[in-house]
Amino acid sequence: MSAPIVNRRDLEFYLYEMFNVESLTNRDKYQDHDKTTFNGAIDTAQAIAEKYFLPIRQKVDANEPTFDGEKVHLIPEIKAGNDAVVEAGLSAPAADYEMGGMQLPLVASSAAYAYLSATASTSLGYLSLTNANCNLIEAHGTQQQIEKWVHPMRAGRFAGTMAMTEPGAGSGLADLTTTATKDAQGNYRLTGSKIFISGGDHDLNENIVHLVLARVKGAPKGVKGISLFIVPKFLVNDDGSLGERNEVALAGLFHKMGGRGQTSTALSFGEQNGAEAYLVGEENKGLMYMFHMMNEARIMVGTSAAVTALTGFQYSLNYAKERPQGRLLSCKDPESPPVNIIEHPDVKRMLLTQKAYSEGAYALCLYGNQLADDETTALTSEERLHAKTVLDFLTPIIKSWPSEWGPKANDLAIQVLGGHGYTNEHPVEMFYRDNRLNPIHEGTTGIQSLDLLCRKVPMNKFSGYNAFLAEIEKTIAETTASDKLSEYSKSLEKAVANVREVTQQVLGAASSTNPDLVFSNSVSYLNMFGHVTIAWLWLKQAAIASQALAGNIHVDEQHFYQGKVQAMKYFFNSELPLTYHWGNLVKNIDSTAFDTQTEWL
Amino acid sequence: MSAPIVNRRDLEFYLYEMFNVESLTNRDKYQDHDKTTFNGAIDTAQAIAEKYFLPIRQKVDANEPTFDGEKVHLIPEIKAGNDAVVEAGLSAPAADYEMGGMQLPLVASSAAYAYLSATASTSLGYLSLTNANCNLIEAHGTQQQIEKWVHPMRAGRFAGTMAMTEPGAGSGLADLTTTATKDAQGNYRLTGSKIFISGGDHDLNENIVHLVLARVKGAPKGVKGISLFIVPKFLVNDDGSLGERNEVALAGLFHKMGGRGQTSTALSFGEQNGAEAYLVGEENKGLMYMFHMMNEARIMVGTSAAVTALTGFQYSLNYAKERPQGRLLSCKDPESPPVNIIEHPDVKRMLLTQKAYSEGAYALCLYGNQLADDETTALTSEERLHAKTVLDFLTPIIKSWPSEWGPKANDLAIQVLGGHGYTNEHPVEMFYRDNRLNPIHEGTTGIQSLDLLCRKVPMNKFSGYNAFLAEIEKTIAETTASDKLSEYSKSLEKAVANVREVTQQVLGAASSTNPDLVFSNSVSYLNMFGHVTIAWLWLKQAAIASQALAGNIHVDEQHFYQGKVQAMKYFFNSELPLTYHWGNLVKNIDSTAFDTQTEWL
Repeated sequence: MSAPIVNRRDLEFYLYEMFNVESLTNRDKYQDHDKTTFNGAIDTAQAIAEKYFLPIRQKVDANEPTFDGEKVHLIPEIKAGNDAVVEAGLSAPAADYEMGGMQLPLVASSAAYAYLSATASTSLGYLSLTNANCNLIEAHGTQQQIEKWVHPMRAGRFAGTMAMTEPGAGSGLADLTTTATKDAQGNYRLTGSKIFISGGDHDLNENIVHLVLARVKGAPKGVKGISLFIVPKFLVNDDGSLGERNEVALAGLFHKMGGRGQTSTALSFGEQNGAEAYLVGEENKGLMYMFHMMNEARIMVGTSAAVTALTGFQYSLNYAKERPQGRLLSCKDPESPPVNIIEHPDVKRMLLTQKAYSEGAYALCLYGNQLADDETTALTSEERLHAKTVLDFLTPIIKSWPSEWGPKANDLAIQVLGGHGYTNEHPVEMFYRDNRLNPIHEGTTGIQSLDLLCRKVPMNKFSGYNAFLAEIEKTIAETTASDKLSEYSKSLEKAVANVREVTQQVLGAASSTNPDLVFSNSVSYLNMFGHVTIAWLWLKQAAIASQALAGNIHVDEQHFYQGKVQAMKYFFNSELPLTYHWGNLVKNIDSTAFDTQTEWL
Repeated sequence: MSAPIVNRRDLEFYLYEMFNVESLTNRDKYQDHDKTTFNGAIDTAQAIAEKYFLPIRQKVDANEPTFDGEKVHLIPEIKAGNDAVVEAGLSAPAADYEMGGMQLPLVASSAAYAYLSATASTSLGYLSLTNANCNLIEAHGTQQQIEKWVHPMRAGRFAGTMAMTEPGAGSGLADLTTTATKDAQGNYRLTGSKIFISGGDHDLNENIVHLVLARVKGAPKGVKGISLFIVPKFLVNDDGSLGERNEVALAGLFHKMGGRGQTSTALSFGEQNGAEAYLVGEENKGLMYMFHMMNEARIMVGTSAAVTALTGFQYSLNYAKERPQGRLLSCKDPESPPVNIIEHPDVKRMLLTQKAYSEGAYALCLYGNQLADDETTALTSEERLHAKTVLDFLTPIIKSWPSEWGPKANDLAIQVLGGHGYTNEHPVEMFYRDNRLNPIHEGTTGIQSLDLLCRKVPMNKFSGYNAFLAEIEKTIAETTASDKLSEYSKSLEKAVANVREVTQQVLGAASSTNPDLVFSNSVSYLNMFGHVTIAWLWLKQAAIASQALAGNIHVDEQHFYQGKVQAMKYFFNSELPLTYHWGNLVKNIDSTAFDTQTEWL
């Protein structure tokens, strides 16, 4: 039996039981939809994944893009698969009809995408970056820019990228040096170098639309002097046809440990007269616009990490069910047949841990999608504001938790397969390599942790922080009297109280102490908050499962819900206690790292 | 500045301050040696590493061995490097003179090997497996077997392997099916398939000597019916010249995520008339003999994991010292120049963590080497027995702790380099891939954890367990009154008391409860015991450092010792508290994994 790409029953649990997407059909935007259209989108995605991507999953990895000095070459199967995605309307299933989308709620769109992402996480990046690029121009560009750039991108003719990182700056955007010069006519010419530009060059589309951060000559130093430009690979005539090659040159490809379906490029802009560049919005507001894309990209990164963990879990689960080896400790008869390895308690532990990490991470990402949806389509302005407030707060956790714990799930998938998992007989070693990028790109875990603790927590008088903890406390109140859940509800209550205490102490210290010291344990803070968040999502899942188990249901359904309860128990017993350890380091302002002089290392 | 392969000052700290190898020169075996010869061996290893291996470190990874259907091909630089190692007498520096070795104490030999292993961990595997093979035949073979097989292996003409794993059995050696048939003349013919045989075929040597586990026809079932055979690729005439090809066929190569310098092979024995095979020792005692090799191989695996962590630490440390990016939180001036990333507290944390993991792991491996040495060369039989007792007990920890935490150090090395670390511009992503094998081969972490808790702890009335804890308690007694260390000494005392309590409770429960349940948290037990062991080794290092710091020493030396103290503090503050969490799971016989029905997953 081959492993399912992801667990379909589980996807439907999220959609219809946990996030209740059917209830969204009372919103104007989604009035055409119902369970049939949601399931239809997922069916289509599954069919494309099985037909185009699953058969070449490891081939893509083994044949990274090449550059012959003139052109980039990908294996042709990538284009065939991506074209099928675009033709099915799945390149941006949440986009409006007029933009060529299916106008699906984000949670449903994300569930459909799970099949594609699990089989083609990296080659699909060309489409998802294009989508994010379109969303940004739609939000901040002019009508003319939307027609010229977004329409052909939505139609699959053009692709899009985001170009931020520079060789000398990395995560330090304040120091970027790419320069735009404005001429007398008000046109911009851009020069500079960018690195790690995903999809920065390839042969999948007619044209590539780069969104580039640059500094207009004379702009203020630091992040306040950064503007955003559209810089196409080929200029485009007014009738939409391609014009001349713009001054955007591929300086080289990076060779990555994973994610080998997608080119990572070094680009050189304007080597002669400067590349033609079109300002988006106003000068010096580029970083704010880019954050629009980046916040979306951060949720995308989290989701990709979660889905890679989900598919690794399913793969190793299937293997463990079929692979006989060894006997239980309780068996003293060497003549008895070996058991399937899933029977070994330590293998169960590794599978249950993967389930808790991957499904917990995925529930978090879908929750983020729900908030992103509510932010724009909820019926009242209070609900919209509430969703925006919580999502802004949670974004660093949605980005980081799946990125940190998803790879740990993939690590266990390898371990379940043992020596076989270390070879390319099976895809689990590829999942492990692919997933390793996620704690790095779109802001490292360290950067996310500072964003959470120093910005998001105190922002607007702690409004996001308090609004989110109130959500957790609502679930605690709903479960505290339940026979089956009360124990866990109380555990979570205690853990939340600890979060509040730790937060108060560390931010209290910030007023009088060197911020470099006070915030030096920010990653522990992120770990603590992330684990409490995931524990909450598991308690919610277990509450739904407990209710279902109280009814008269089919045995397969019983197993499914028991699995949810068991993964919750695992998370509360084996993971939640760690939050006190991390909290102590933060609360006590542990200075071990801060005190370390560089010469001591 | 290029990164040091490993920290030479640190190696000398272990040799001369912590493990005091100079004191061994009063043993007959080592009477020719002194600090000069020890340093000479290290110098030679460093020179070979820098000349032959460092320049091709990533080339070896990028050019894995190929099989053209007839022969295996490696890039020629591997042979050049390995030949240089053999010529310098470094292929088995601890072997006796008469066996072609340098008769070095194991701790010194291991320190020299660190340079080789850090630059060529996988291609060097051909030599280290050969060495382990020789050691086994020397211990359990006949004089004739030693002359025929060991001498040419020691001379570098032949290579050796160990062939245990089978496609249907994996870690379950009890189920192996490779069969040896004895004819009327008492000669054996062997048939069967083996997989994951490292170095199972290659073109580096004239001949390959496989040590193969097989079942003699009619032998008892299970592990009690396993015998050990020498099965050469080419038969060898009495004059030492090569004879006919034996029936050992390469069925294929595995393609691994890392360790790509070394072939991992599927071998087919005796496809026609059976392969000629020569029994080692007695029938049905094969597993016992193989454990001789396996225990040595387990220490080797731990050491390789530790050294890969050490070299990744040095690489990322060097990078962090030279790479400017971003500003400290306390800096509000965007016009100020960026700082080197080592100044960022979270980067310091990632470096200090790597230091604590890698140097802690390496100290553990050297301690294992010291015990292995004392087991055979200590002056009194009490000391020899004591060393053997402690080493037998500790072997699963020496194998597993570096293998589990070494890759975590390498993970942080990637994170320090950010996007650059994810590409082959730098070797850290390779270290991460290479190191991922170590928790799998020579017995997975799960198997080691059961070996520790179910066998090694209660073995011989807890003699190894008690002897080892007594060593820890000796250090506690020596440090408890120290101004600087008392706090940590008391922490460790508490942690050891917790280990004793957890052990008593879990083994107490074993008498009345299903062993599958009681031992289901064995990995948590291993984690707990491993962390206490490493905390002890850090306290020992900090004690030496504190004493040195009390003297009048050069500022560079002050920095070095401060680093030791700081890494100890990190381990005690950030890692040791986790042992209580793991201990609770074990002590409370947490049944979450055990209770999980396979259908729930």
